[in-house]
Amino acid sequence: MSNRSDSKAAIYSLPKDKSHIVLTGDRPTGPLHLGHYYGSLKRRIECQSLFKQYVVIADVQALTDHADNPQLIRSNVMEVMTDYLAVGLDPSKSTFYLQSAIPETAELTLYYMNMIKLGRLQRNPTVKTEIRQKGLDEEVPVGFLCYPLHQAADISQFRATLVPVGPDQIPMIELTNDIIRSFNKTYNTDYLVECAALVPAQGLLPGLDGDTKMSKSLNNAIYLKDDAATVAKKVKGMFTDPQHLRVEDPGRTEGNPVFAYLDAFDSRTEEVESLKKQYCHGGLGDGTVKKRLTEVLNEFLEPIRLHRKQFEADQGEVANILRKGTEVARSAIQETLSRVRASIGVFSLS
Amino acid sequence: MSNRSDSKAAIYSLPKDKSHIVLTGDRPTGPLHLGHYYGSLKRRIECQSLFKQYVVIADVQALTDHADNPQLIRSNVMEVMTDYLAVGLDPSKSTFYLQSAIPETAELTLYYMNMIKLGRLQRNPTVKTEIRQKGLDEEVPVGFLCYPLHQAADISQFRATLVPVGPDQIPMIELTNDIIRSFNKTYNTDYLVECAALVPAQGLLPGLDGDTKMSKSLNNAIYLKDDAATVAKKVKGMFTDPQHLRVEDPGRTEGNPVFAYLDAFDSRTEEVESLKKQYCHGGLGDGTVKKRLTEVLNEFLEPIRLHRKQFEADQGEVANILRKGTEVARSAIQETLSRVRASIGVFSLS
Repeated sequence: MSNRSDSKAAIYSLPKDKSHIVLTGDRPTGPLHLGHYYGSLKRRIECQSLFKQYVVIADVQALTDHADNPQLIRSNVMEVMTDYLAVGLDPSKSTFYLQSAIPETAELTLYYMNMIKLGRLQRNPTVKTEIRQKGLDEEVPVGFLCYPLHQAADISQFRATLVPVGPDQIPMIELTNDIIRSFNKTYNTDYLVECAALVPAQGLLPGLDGDTKMSKSLNNAIYLKDDAATVAKKVKGMFTDPQHLRVEDPGRTEGNPVFAYLDAFDSRTEEVESLKKQYCHGGLGDGTVKKRLTEVLNEFLEPIRLHRKQFEADQGEVANILRKGTEVARSAIQETLSRVRASIGVFSLS
Repeated sequence: MSNRSDSKAAIYSLPKDKSHIVLTGDRPTGPLHLGHYYGSLKRRIECQSLFKQYVVIADVQALTDHADNPQLIRSNVMEVMTDYLAVGLDPSKSTFYLQSAIPETAELTLYYMNMIKLGRLQRNPTVKTEIRQKGLDEEVPVGFLCYPLHQAADISQFRATLVPVGPDQIPMIELTNDIIRSFNKTYNTDYLVECAALVPAQGLLPGLDGDTKMSKSLNNAIYLKDDAATVAKKVKGMFTDPQHLRVEDPGRTEGNPVFAYLDAFDSRTEEVESLKKQYCHGGLGDGTVKKRLTEVLNEFLEPIRLHRKQFEADQGEVANILRKGTEVARSAIQETLSRVRASIGVFSLS
């Protein structure tokens, strides 16, 4: 399942240059799941040891398609922060911040809104797809159409050069770079820097139902905080190959999420390859493979769960980490803003 | 030249209730002219003695159609502030503030972007006309399309109830009220309040060329800082009735900006009415009426010019007035923002 795009804005392996700055994060609309881990959390854990990394809890952007359900967002801020810490994102290596606590990001967004035409925004493939999926069309809220500008502000306010995202987000990074080029050209500066999407080479982790994407809204996810019994139950109900009815039938491993998960989480790759051959040939039952997958996933998730319990017991400390990170991030953002304002030549009162 | 609209969002005379809060201001893209005076400054001078009044130097909004000419905006901030003070806006009665110095307005704008659909914004008659005039169409910058949302933030962040504007701006006020209703409904609050356009009963002051509107971009304006000789020269070159060739010819006063200006600035209304009759009947030359108009305008402008010279000589004090006002305004805005955020239920770090 190769996943390469021709885009110049995408790279697939970690760069050697240590001077990169990473911006990454999530909308707090639910707990994080294996798809998040596979698609970006894993990369972030690598990145935090190599580069300077900022992790945003994107509650302002979450409002752009959940404006009428703010309690969902509010209640998931701590949930996502706790997942971050449980999975091994480390406040001594990553700076966490809460988007809504920093009005300067909104200010930068307004300046960027002058750098891009409506048509360019409407032609953005990622947003186009999302608008179609949500059935919004002409009735799209302005905030939803414009969230890529806010995302561009998030990235560029740290002069970030690497953004670990899924392949569906590459057009967003291209848009961000368009804005940055337009800004630098209009205001005759090179202060803002272009960035690259750091995309997993292997594509998205499918859902339990075999859908191409694991997601909360599709109700096809295994959460990082799911307990062992829940994982066993979810794996038991997974979609496999619908033609593979009896153990002796030959089965397909392509499009079969059980094998996709083994590829993603089972480190004994030779054994997995041998199981795949057996499955294709016939003679390997779904139950046997699912049992192995359950063990693999629970082995992977157990230390995360234990770590999570510690942070669940000390939510004050979790909030404190977010508060401190937000202060650090805000100060970096204010520095960028003052450079941006100077580049534009905004009138200074001081 | 009656100017009434059916809009519930428009009123034409000063309300008696002293509890109103007024928001008004200008984009700093050039010095202020008689059209500004007639259309809004006059009203602001009345308002500042009756109500709490905020006056914004809208430099962020000015960027939405002058993104590539920020020096124009920067150089006109002090120009417009000096005009304000020269004309009698009084810092002990009005609070002046610089839009770009307050990131919280941008934050509020982002929340409002979730309250309105793209189609509603595109159907706004004021913006539609402006887009047509500028020949922008699909190529409209996002910032330009969205400036009414920023304007809605400007107004509502003070819970302003009165906005002195020209009749062309009534749809903007209607849009602002739509946003406010949508916000209050979505977040089950009545904190934000609807506002009314306070429109001059008599319509816009025409340009020197007879165009319906006096404006810098049409190059048909008399500026508040024009000296007496410039005013005389500009009046001499004014459009009148092109059929009125000889003194004895009957002339038209309708669509004749010379008489529109006399109506607006000559307090001896009976004499003006008698001149109009004479002009219509024939026997009154353009030169005679223009001479009178020159005297009337210079009599009106002379105290403004003198006042202006004082402030020109002390620009440090002018900047200081803007700085202090901005601090006062920001603190009021932060109070509103904290209520808005509480209504939405934004996660609080403190």
